[in-house]
Amino acid sequence: MKLRPLQDRILVQRVEEETKTKGGIIIPDTAKEKPAEGKIVAVGNGKVAESGERIALEVKEGDLVLFGKYSGTEVKVDGEEYLIMREDDILGIIE
Amino acid sequence: MKLRPLQDRILVQRVEEETKTKGGIIIPDTAKEKPAEGKIVAVGNGKVAESGERIALEVKEGDLVLFGKYSGTEVKVDGEEYLIMREDDILGIIE
Amino acid sequence: MKLRPLQDRILVQRVEEETKTKGGIIIPDTAKEKPAEGKIVAVGNGKVAESGERIALEVKEGDLVLFGKYSGTEVKVDGEEYLIMREDDILGIIE
Amino acid sequence: MKLRPLQDRILVQRVEEETKTKGGIIIPDTAKEKPAEGKIVAVGNGKVAESGERIALEVKEGDLVLFGKYSGTEVKVDGEEYLIMREDDILGIIE
Amino acid sequence: MKLRPLQDRILVQRVEEETKTKGGIIIPDTAKEKPAEGKIVAVGNGKVAESGERIALEVKEGDLVLFGKYSGTEVKVDGEEYLIMREDDILGIIE
Amino acid sequence: MKLRPLQDRILVQRVEEETKTKGGIIIPDTAKEKPAEGKIVAVGNGKVAESGERIALEVKEGDLVLFGKYSGTEVKVDGEEYLIMREDDILGIIE
Amino acid sequence: MKLRPLQDRILVQRVEEETKTKGGIIIPDTAKEKPAEGKIVAVGNGKVAESGERIALEVKEGDLVLFGKYSGTEVKVDGEEYLIMREDDILGIIE
Repeated sequence: MKLRPLQDRILVQRVEEETKTKGGIIIPDTAKEKPAEGKIVAVGNGKVAESGERIALEVKEGDLVLFGKYSGTEVKVDGEEYLIMREDDILGIIE
Repeated sequence: MKLRPLQDRILVQRVEEETKTKGGIIIPDTAKEKPAEGKIVAVGNGKVAESGERIALEVKEGDLVLFGKYSGTEVKVDGEEYLIMREDDILGIIE
Repeated sequence: MKLRPLQDRILVQRVEEETKTKGGIIIPDTAKEKPAEGKIVAVGNGKVAESGERIALEVKEGDLVLFGKYSGTEVKVDGEEYLIMREDDILGIIE
Repeated sequence: MKLRPLQDRILVQRVEEETKTKGGIIIPDTAKEKPAEGKIVAVGNGKVAESGERIALEVKEGDLVLFGKYSGTEVKVDGEEYLIMREDDILGIIE
Repeated sequence: MKLRPLQDRILVQRVEEETKTKGGIIIPDTAKEKPAEGKIVAVGNGKVAESGERIALEVKEGDLVLFGKYSGTEVKVDGEEYLIMREDDILGIIE
Repeated sequence: MKLRPLQDRILVQRVEEETKTKGGIIIPDTAKEKPAEGKIVAVGNGKVAESGERIALEVKEGDLVLFGKYSGTEVKVDGEEYLIMREDDILGIIE
Repeated sequence: MKLRPLQDRILVQRVEEETKTKGGIIIPDTAKEKPAEGKIVAVGNGKVAESGERIALEVKEGDLVLFGKYSGTEVKVDGEEYLIMREDDILGIIE
C-alpha cells in the first residue's frame, strides 16, 4: 500500500531529532522555531503554474531534508507515521 | 440522478474512519488536525488559469483519497451523504 | 423584461428546500453550512482573465444547481424573486 | 461640462427606488443588502490587464443597471448627483 | 525646479473646494467620503506590468481631475503645495 | 568599500530636512506623513517579473529623490549613514 | 556534509556584529531594526515563476551580505551555526 501526494506535496518520514548520527545536523536550543529532519518517501507531480505548465519538484524520493518543526499534516500508513507537506515547507536538502 | 461538480471541485464519499480495512490508513491520535479518507464519486473539468488554459484534475472517479477533516460542504444525493470540495483539499491518493 | 448578469455572474431562481421532488437532493441537518438548490435563469458572458481572454461559463440557462446557502444578492424582477451570484458560488450541477 | 471616468470606472445616475415604473424591478424587504437601480451616464476605457491588454467594459452609456446599495462615491456635476463606481460593482443590466 | 513622479504616480495641485467656478463640480454634504478636485502638474512613465510591458497613464499634464479626499502625500515644491498620488486614486477627468 | 543593493532596492543618503537650499523642497507641517529628501548612491539590477523578464529601475545613481519619511532600513557604510529601500518607496525625482 | 537550500533560499553564516573589520559596516544604534552581516555558504537553484521559467539568484557562494536582523531560520551543520533564508531577505552585497 502506498500514499501518493498530489501536486507540490511530498510525503516525509520524520528522523528522530535525538539521532544526530544520520545527517550530522544538530538543532540549536534557541527561542526560534527549530527545523526538523526527515526522509522523503514520495513526491507529487508538481503544481501547475498560471501559464498552464507543470513545475517539477526539486526534491525526490530518498532525499534527506530539513523542514519547519510544525510543517505538514500527520498520517499513519501501514502502521508507520508520516508527514504530508508542500515542497515550499522544505528548507534544504542534506547532502 | 447525478451531481456534477464545477471546475476544480470534486464529489467525495467519506469512508468511515473506524473501518481501517479499506485502505489500511490509521489516523494517529494527536492534537493536530487529522485527515479523513474518502472515495471520489465525480470530478469537475478543472479550473481555468489566468492564461485561459483549463487545468485538468490529477484525481479521477474511483480514487481513494485523504483530505483535511473539515474540508468540503456536506450534501445528500438520493439519500447518500457526500462532500463537495476542491482538489487542493486532497492531500494524497491511496494506492 | 429581463436582467442580464455581467461577466461571471449568474441569475438563479431558488428552488424551495422543502420540495425534494424536483432534484431529489436532501440537505442533511448538520451544523455545517447547508447548500441550496436553484435553477439558472440567465448567465453572464464570463470573466476576462489577466491574459485578456474571456473565459466562458461552465453553467448555462436552465441548469439545476447547488450553491452555498448564503451566496448571492436577492433581487425581484417582475414580481419574482431571484439571486445574483458568481459562478464560483456554484458547487455543482444536478443532472 | 462632463466627467469622464478612468479605466474600469463608470458614472451612474441613481434611479429613485420608489419609482418602480422605470425598470419594473422591485427590491425585496429582507435583511440582506439591497441592490439599487441606476442609469449609466459615462464609462471609462477599461482596465489594463497584466498582459498589457486593455479590457473593454461590458456596459455602455444609457444602460439601466443594478448595483450594490453602498457601491461608489457620490459627486455632483452641474447640480446633478451621480455615483462613480467600478464595473465590478454592477450586478446586471436591465433589458 | 521640477518634481517628476515615478511609474504610475502623478503630481496634483489641489483646487480649492470652495471655488466651484473652475470646474463646476459641487461636492454634496453627505456622510460619504467626498472627492476633491485638482489639476495634474506632472505624470510618471507608467507602471510595468508582470508581462514586462510599461502601461502608459490615461491622464496627462493639465487634466482637471477628481480624487478621493484623503488620497496622496502632501509636498511643497518652490513654496507651492502639491499632492503625489497613484493614477488609481483618480476617479475621473473633468471635461 | 561599497554596498550593492539587490533587485529593486536602492541605497539612499538622506539630505537633511532643515537644508532647503539643496532641492528647494519645503516639507509642510501637517498631520500627514511627511516625505524626506535623499540622494541615490547605488541601485539594484531590478526585480524579475513573473514573465521572467528583469525590469530596469527608473532611478539611477546621483538622482535626488523624495521618499516616505519612515521608508527603508538604516545602515552605516565606512562611517556614513545610508538607507536601503525599494524603488516603490520613491515618490518622485527632483529635477 | 553539506546542506543545499531549495529554490530561492540561501545558507548564510552570520559574521559577528562586534567584528567591524571584516566588511567595515557599522550598525547604528537606533530604534529601527538593525541589519546583520553574513557570508553566503550555499544558494538554491532559484524560484520558478508563474511563466514556468526558473529565476537564477543574484547572490552566489562567498558573497558578503547584509540582511534583516531577524531573518531566516537557525540550523547547526557539523557543529557550525548557519541561517537559512530567502534571497528576498538580503538587503545588499558588500563589495
